[in-house]
Amino acid sequence: MAREAGVSRGTVSRVLNGGHYVSPAAAEAVNAAIRRTGYVVNRHARSLITGRSDSVGFLLTEPQERFFEDPNFNVLLRGCTQALAAHDVPLLLMLAGTDDERRRITRYITAGHVDGVLLVSSHSGDPVAEELRAAGVPLVACGKPIGLGSKVSYVAADDRDGARDMVRHLLALGRRRIGVVTGPPDTPGGVERLAGYREVLAEAGVAADERLVVSGDYSRASGEAGAERLLARVPDLDAVFVASDLMAQGVLTALQRSGRRVPEDVAVGGFDDSPAAVAASPELTTIRQPWDRISTEMVRVLLAQIGGEDPAAVILPTELVKRDST
Amino acid sequence: MAREAGVSRGTVSRVLNGGHYVSPAAAEAVNAAIRRTGYVVNRHARSLITGRSDSVGFLLTEPQERFFEDPNFNVLLRGCTQALAAHDVPLLLMLAGTDDERRRITRYITAGHVDGVLLVSSHSGDPVAEELRAAGVPLVACGKPIGLGSKVSYVAADDRDGARDMVRHLLALGRRRIGVVTGPPDTPGGVERLAGYREVLAEAGVAADERLVVSGDYSRASGEAGAERLLARVPDLDAVFVASDLMAQGVLTALQRSGRRVPEDVAVGGFDDSPAAVAASPELTTIRQPWDRISTEMVRVLLAQIGGEDPAAVILPTELVKRDST
Repeated sequence: MAREAGVSRGTVSRVLNGGHYVSPAAAEAVNAAIRRTGYVVNRHARSLITGRSDSVGFLLTEPQERFFEDPNFNVLLRGCTQALAAHDVPLLLMLAGTDDERRRITRYITAGHVDGVLLVSSHSGDPVAEELRAAGVPLVACGKPIGLGSKVSYVAADDRDGARDMVRHLLALGRRRIGVVTGPPDTPGGVERLAGYREVLAEAGVAADERLVVSGDYSRASGEAGAERLLARVPDLDAVFVASDLMAQGVLTALQRSGRRVPEDVAVGGFDDSPAAVAASPELTTIRQPWDRISTEMVRVLLAQIGGEDPAAVILPTELVKRDST
Repeated sequence: MAREAGVSRGTVSRVLNGGHYVSPAAAEAVNAAIRRTGYVVNRHARSLITGRSDSVGFLLTEPQERFFEDPNFNVLLRGCTQALAAHDVPLLLMLAGTDDERRRITRYITAGHVDGVLLVSSHSGDPVAEELRAAGVPLVACGKPIGLGSKVSYVAADDRDGARDMVRHLLALGRRRIGVVTGPPDTPGGVERLAGYREVLAEAGVAADERLVVSGDYSRASGEAGAERLLARVPDLDAVFVASDLMAQGVLTALQRSGRRVPEDVAVGGFDDSPAAVAASPELTTIRQPWDRISTEMVRVLLAQIGGEDPAAVILPTELVKRDST
């Protein structure tokens, strides 16, 4: 390229990096050479020099079906796309639900085709966060990646505090046989929301009863199955705290099929305040996750890291939203 | 790299391109140098030499909401992901519903970060296909891109023939006041399915009645609004051919709200055989698009083009699927 343009390699590099400290004549010579020799190769050359692709990946390590089923992902994706648009940075969506897909996409990312990754991965068993971190890829997780401490940036709602608010709300309604459908035990939401539930019951002097605890995988079907297990074990159940709105929809289905009235016989509280909460019948009392702020903060922290800053964790408060299911 | 490995630049290039015509000792020297100097930079170097990123983009130029609403996209995305997996090629999902998003993502694509693009774009007004073609990016569209003739590869179901089958089916049931909710007039499905409808009615000697023709945008809401317009114009309507299953769900809602029984008073035929067809009540008689084959063929044609072949069009047959709405 330098030979083609008749200038030094340093001049080519400066033109490719934005044209600072370059005379107009030299810049024109380089740009003419770029046009003659082809744009694509020169974008690679630019990547080689700057190490930047000017793009960000949104990596979801969940099966594709979960992506379409759970409206949280739609909301989060829209928020991140908008926050990046303000910086003129395109977002690449990467769905990697299997080990093979994760391997392929990790190869693509570590080859430098994106400058950083917004990681939406609920499971701690997932090695992607650690692999990307080890490869030096700027990374912000949605929710705390279990086991990586503060080595990886993350943005999360205060899961434990949100769960505490919901269980206190159910107690205040006079309910005492409060079941819980938790998330998977290898997810931060699964761990923290259950911890909040246990803490508040203990503080209120309600005896722990492990028959009241079942776990789901955040899908609607797992909520339905979870409620059936709870009803079989504790037929006089009077409330259920469910760790996601989508699972809570399944819980409502199972309760209504068993003849229970919601909220008269059994009060149901969800988590997320996703579109699933208002689509449910009755509309769900839930814990609002501040999705707009989560998206904005994930993008802010990622761009800071791409710019050279160290990792950071951001914890955002939740809010109890009272509707018709309690 | 050549200096680091103590071999010629040609040897490095041959190793990076797959190791043909290289002695084992030289290959080991290059690979050891790659390990010493870092993988990421060398992936850029490999791209610089081969012009390949070993990845494919799935570009959807529709608003994000449409992506989550219409189950056709989910089915198509899954099929393409699986077909590419057989070649160990990752798929990058690109949602570009606004002009700014299209500009950003076109910049990313033409910079060579993907080797080719599977384009899912219903509107002919969309300049992306022409821009990518002009930039020399291998490209396969889902559906015929209007106005580009056979300069761009595409894979499509036989829209006109499918529409003909459905309207013949409605005629065979004795229906004569057959309305149609078409797709947008700048989409191949919008044009061809309407053409098939008109042809069959003309062949059967049914007088053309433009009050029976309304158009939607493939969303459920537009189907509902379209059916309301049809009912206001032609209250004794006895059938509706709807150019997508999702719009047909909206048509069912409007018909049922107006007190019409389906299929007794009004028979309804959809198009796609998407998950929306069996989710509808009653389940929809529809025209099956062969989604699995469409995905497989899109990937096959794209990989051939990346390998240097000229564009090609592939047209696949559809099939009438009889259920409860006719």
